[in-house]
Amino acid sequence: MKTKAAVLTGLNQPFEILELDLDGPREGEVLIRFVAAGLCHSDLHLPSGDLPSRLPIVAGHEGAGVIEEVGPGVTKVKPGDHVVCSFIPSCGVCRYCSTGRQNLCDLGEFLLDGQMLDGTFRFHHEGTDVGGMCSLGTFSQYATVSQYSVVKIDESIPLEKAVLVGCGVPSGWGTAVNTGNVRAGDTTVIFGAGGLGMNTVQAAVHAGAKNVVVVDPQEFKRETALKFGATHAFADAAQAHEAITEMTRGQMADQALVLVGTVDETVVQSAFSAIGKGGVVVVTGLGNMEHLTVHVSGAELTLWEKTIKGSLFGSSNPQYDIVKLLGLYQAGQLKLDELITRQYRLEEINQGYEDLVEGKNIRGVLIHEH
Amino acid sequence: MKTKAAVLTGLNQPFEILELDLDGPREGEVLIRFVAAGLCHSDLHLPSGDLPSRLPIVAGHEGAGVIEEVGPGVTKVKPGDHVVCSFIPSCGVCRYCSTGRQNLCDLGEFLLDGQMLDGTFRFHHEGTDVGGMCSLGTFSQYATVSQYSVVKIDESIPLEKAVLVGCGVPSGWGTAVNTGNVRAGDTTVIFGAGGLGMNTVQAAVHAGAKNVVVVDPQEFKRETALKFGATHAFADAAQAHEAITEMTRGQMADQALVLVGTVDETVVQSAFSAIGKGGVVVVTGLGNMEHLTVHVSGAELTLWEKTIKGSLFGSSNPQYDIVKLLGLYQAGQLKLDELITRQYRLEEINQGYEDLVEGKNIRGVLIHEH
Repeated sequence: MKTKAAVLTGLNQPFEILELDLDGPREGEVLIRFVAAGLCHSDLHLPSGDLPSRLPIVAGHEGAGVIEEVGPGVTKVKPGDHVVCSFIPSCGVCRYCSTGRQNLCDLGEFLLDGQMLDGTFRFHHEGTDVGGMCSLGTFSQYATVSQYSVVKIDESIPLEKAVLVGCGVPSGWGTAVNTGNVRAGDTTVIFGAGGLGMNTVQAAVHAGAKNVVVVDPQEFKRETALKFGATHAFADAAQAHEAITEMTRGQMADQALVLVGTVDETVVQSAFSAIGKGGVVVVTGLGNMEHLTVHVSGAELTLWEKTIKGSLFGSSNPQYDIVKLLGLYQAGQLKLDELITRQYRLEEINQGYEDLVEGKNIRGVLIHEH
Repeated sequence: MKTKAAVLTGLNQPFEILELDLDGPREGEVLIRFVAAGLCHSDLHLPSGDLPSRLPIVAGHEGAGVIEEVGPGVTKVKPGDHVVCSFIPSCGVCRYCSTGRQNLCDLGEFLLDGQMLDGTFRFHHEGTDVGGMCSLGTFSQYATVSQYSVVKIDESIPLEKAVLVGCGVPSGWGTAVNTGNVRAGDTTVIFGAGGLGMNTVQAAVHAGAKNVVVVDPQEFKRETALKFGATHAFADAAQAHEAITEMTRGQMADQALVLVGTVDETVVQSAFSAIGKGGVVVVTGLGNMEHLTVHVSGAELTLWEKTIKGSLFGSSNPQYDIVKLLGLYQAGQLKLDELITRQYRLEEINQGYEDLVEGKNIRGVLIHEH
């Protein structure tokens, strides 16, 4: 069949809207009609080369839609089911899945190159194989993906809202709740209040942190963070450092959570300075794979017994946490509607990313037309 | 009273044996007759300037002896009690002590400058105040220290053996068991098999790690590590990396524990490369406070969800773990005798540190004469 998609064909180029050929599902695969896709900063790490990927590739790794067709051996979903895609597949049987760490599923090794889990491709353009970001490619009207990449959700939840729990919401929320282990009464500082960080803010507030301190240069994001429950918001790290010193009487923060769009040495060092003895820095935002963005004093790490942890998908388990987070949304305890700043058509995708880079959006959402 | 002690009077100088004046115990303090002191690499971080300290200072932070006299308000010990000193005091009531993290006791802030907890000094030389390393100064025949710095032990345990549980043993053992959380069946790599690392080896073996891989350039230490139960020992990180890749079929180590004498970027990077998804690097060895010895890819930290943790005193609680470890020694489950390569007299202290630098000792022990 044919599908229209936003494709990256070379580094440092805008996405091109191309009509692709799409193969139907093979063993263990499903065909999805995407209703909505989220515009996440990680997609920009492909054209920038920060995350080295095989090209051409259909971008987009936040997606929600309806199952149209299933291949042989698919037991998890059936045609008509509403699903959210997880940017990490979960096979259920590898070392990590079987020990409660689905976010580290061994099938993740295919994500950056965008092929299917059997090493082949379902998207094609004029005879050339085209990958799908995170083995998905949600900036396409339709896609064929592994059943391991989809999670069935309650049909009463609008797909254009549910789409956000495929990446941004669990990655941000889990950074606070799972990886950072924010507990009631803690002092938590969050660097970056965008599509991920804003969910870290609402998670830290939900977990009962006493002080939820946000650092973001964008006034719009600081104001939104305060609406989401942050107790303090600063434009730069130095101001936040001074305030945290004051509010904790020098004990400093329990957690410093890094969710900026592009991580660099400076923000990690600011985070490392913001925590006290026994505190933890969590790095969730991405930067260039080769850049050694964690650069701190080992003696300080040891003498203050600090910890620096990476967080992928917020240490969440897609099969469990996607449904759980949507349940919180249904209960009125998780904001999704308020995260969405603007909707875009597929043809407006580059405009959407310009708005993201300019800090105009908490989250932009692409609504597919069929 | 008078006491002979090894004193550091300036940077990059040998220790000088001086006769000092020693004040008796004030409120909450005790006078100790030291029987034995351990020669730990950390003492060398004073003359090198890696750990900036007030000078002059009596070196030595591993000590065991007998209580001679107690000041007003001392309830913890009485004259005649045998004690091991902890290089970190534990007040029992600060935020960290009261939450089971005595190794982070707020009184630790005085350690580097070596004064007593009230800011004054008990050692004096020709009218000049002299500090004691870690508010101890175990390279002195006698010292006046806080009751928070001593732990009463069973008198049947020889003090010249027990002395090692004041720093090296818990710091090394706890790096594996507490901070690194080594579990039965794990693959653990240990960088540096000296006075601390050798205890990490025996802890990892005791905890049931399947593979205990040691990296140390000294053949003598590699051979000793194998006698302590290590399963593999390599002279350099590249050889260890290849072997770990092979033995784990590419999954890599669960923990990489850094216990070299002077930590640098290279060893931390080797440790970071040696662990797999969800793995942990623990940095226990020290280096210059200002050197940014942790220098790794933030994106790799995130995508593989790795963790880098500092470990102070092996995340052990002095009041509990010192006694526990000596109980393991009494039960024949912890090697202490085998750690001691050679004993020295106070006047031989500089020879002892030359031997340490040349890699001749697992642990040298100073035996005081009175």
